[in-house]
Amino acid sequence: MIDPLAHAPDRVTICEVGPRDGLQNEAVPISADDKVHYCDLLSDAGVPILEATSFVSPKAVPQMADADDVFRRIRKDPGRIYLVLCPNERGLDRAVAAGVRAIGVFTAASEAFAQANIRMSVDESVATFAGVVQRAKADGMWVRAAVSTAFGCPFQGDVPVAAVVRVCERLLALGVDELSVADTIGVATPNQVVEVVGALASAVPPERLGLHFHDTRGTAMANTLAALELGVRIFDTSSGGLGGCPFAPGATGNCATEDLVYMLHKMGIATGIDLDKLRAASRFIQGKLGRPLASRAYTALEAADARAARIAVAG
Amino acid sequence: MIDPLAHAPDRVTICEVGPRDGLQNEAVPISADDKVHYCDLLSDAGVPILEATSFVSPKAVPQMADADDVFRRIRKDPGRIYLVLCPNERGLDRAVAAGVRAIGVFTAASEAFAQANIRMSVDESVATFAGVVQRAKADGMWVRAAVSTAFGCPFQGDVPVAAVVRVCERLLALGVDELSVADTIGVATPNQVVEVVGALASAVPPERLGLHFHDTRGTAMANTLAALELGVRIFDTSSGGLGGCPFAPGATGNCATEDLVYMLHKMGIATGIDLDKLRAASRFIQGKLGRPLASRAYTALEAADARAARIAVAG
Repeated sequence: MIDPLAHAPDRVTICEVGPRDGLQNEAVPISADDKVHYCDLLSDAGVPILEATSFVSPKAVPQMADADDVFRRIRKDPGRIYLVLCPNERGLDRAVAAGVRAIGVFTAASEAFAQANIRMSVDESVATFAGVVQRAKADGMWVRAAVSTAFGCPFQGDVPVAAVVRVCERLLALGVDELSVADTIGVATPNQVVEVVGALASAVPPERLGLHFHDTRGTAMANTLAALELGVRIFDTSSGGLGGCPFAPGATGNCATEDLVYMLHKMGIATGIDLDKLRAASRFIQGKLGRPLASRAYTALEAADARAARIAVAG
Repeated sequence: MIDPLAHAPDRVTICEVGPRDGLQNEAVPISADDKVHYCDLLSDAGVPILEATSFVSPKAVPQMADADDVFRRIRKDPGRIYLVLCPNERGLDRAVAAGVRAIGVFTAASEAFAQANIRMSVDESVATFAGVVQRAKADGMWVRAAVSTAFGCPFQGDVPVAAVVRVCERLLALGVDELSVADTIGVATPNQVVEVVGALASAVPPERLGLHFHDTRGTAMANTLAALELGVRIFDTSSGGLGGCPFAPGATGNCATEDLVYMLHKMGIATGIDLDKLRAASRFIQGKLGRPLASRAYTALEAADARAARIAVAG
């Protein structure tokens, strides 16, 4: 019998996107103090890469209007990467002023998505942030590029795998350090993961390929497993499963960090993350959001702890 | 690059357990009329095996006290299996009187679980229903046996794989037609699936091996993918992700049929199930339970439809 796990890595790097991708899709405004505390709890938990905030236009994304303040005040542990999104030169100016040393840029694999979202082609969008990447690299920063709608698009449906490969090649040629290839609307299935990762194998070194799954249709963990089996070792997740999908209001958000960490650790794959401390971060932000979080491992572990506490009191 | 999906089947048989395993773990009482309608909607959706109810003691499981009435009234489509649980001779008497042609029996892989739940050893529990299986087989019935706690136990923790193999061998020797090896408390991870399915390969013909995952910690879909990759082709799921876990109150229940059907169909794996009609069954029972269902595909597809309807009205 085959062993599908024969090529799985023994260590995975998780990019925790709760404070940015997660909160950005939450309707409840979170104060800067609370964002800082949430980020610090995530540092306590040991996340290796923390997507802390986004230097976008405050008008476009009100939840991220306090990016400068939040980034200045979060604790920066040595050895961890504190990442912020920077769509343009103005964002980079603000990021540099706040002491940022790692930025994220983003484009799409789908032409229809790029046109609908930013009214330009994928190539034009890459050209607009080429200057941002060059400035950041010249300044010694670490740069990550996200490729949205790589597994499906709300406007055009299927996205050709060749388009994903092409934009990834362009981004690497620009000098970005790491890619995050995203299933933005949560439609991907494991056969697509095999197809896309296979097509990217010759273009992207495995230590620079990250995947970003949303659990909108319940496939995020299965997609992650398929990618692990192909040797992928970088995944974006959000604590508690924070976030949502603007194209399916009320639907599940990012793949939950707790679910992935629970699975990886039991598979003997290290993450450097302390699951109990991670839950403390999720518990804190759940209290601020005032709604149950989507992470099933978080929910089950919290429920089991509460039950054990009741039994201890009753005993 | 390897293709982990090279050995995946092109067709999967889903055993829909919503009306039994699902509802049994729901606190809200459901009327017999509503159970019958829910089962008929699931028949409409094309589920090949429907676990309709349970002929257990009404004192032990009040939600299933109407088993006789419900089973008599549900529509029985030709070519589908309508399964009921029968723990003992008394249950079989009732099932036979109601016209049942397919029964399920159950035991555990964990000795500690068997002792705690039914105050006997695993061997003793198999011995107690040996007579039930023999009578059912002599009467030409189809018999399925569930092995609970095969991936972990709330009392003893780890469960030796050898214990899983041993009880499966004993059940096949009794003459059961199909096995359902269950992660009762939702702790399994894909490496365990590889280990357990690998150990069962020589003892259980693949066309007789079913797996039953709970999504308590978010691993059900990844576990299912690992099993598919090993050629497993029978899975138990519940419509809407109905059900829960008595050891973690409030936690997620069975792997959701919608999530699995969405994934399988997009992978080109047939199920015979109509996803839209399946959602109609889940929508109906959600209305009776009065709480959101856990299935992410169900939630996303319902939300997307509602959004499309609003846009159509606005346009």
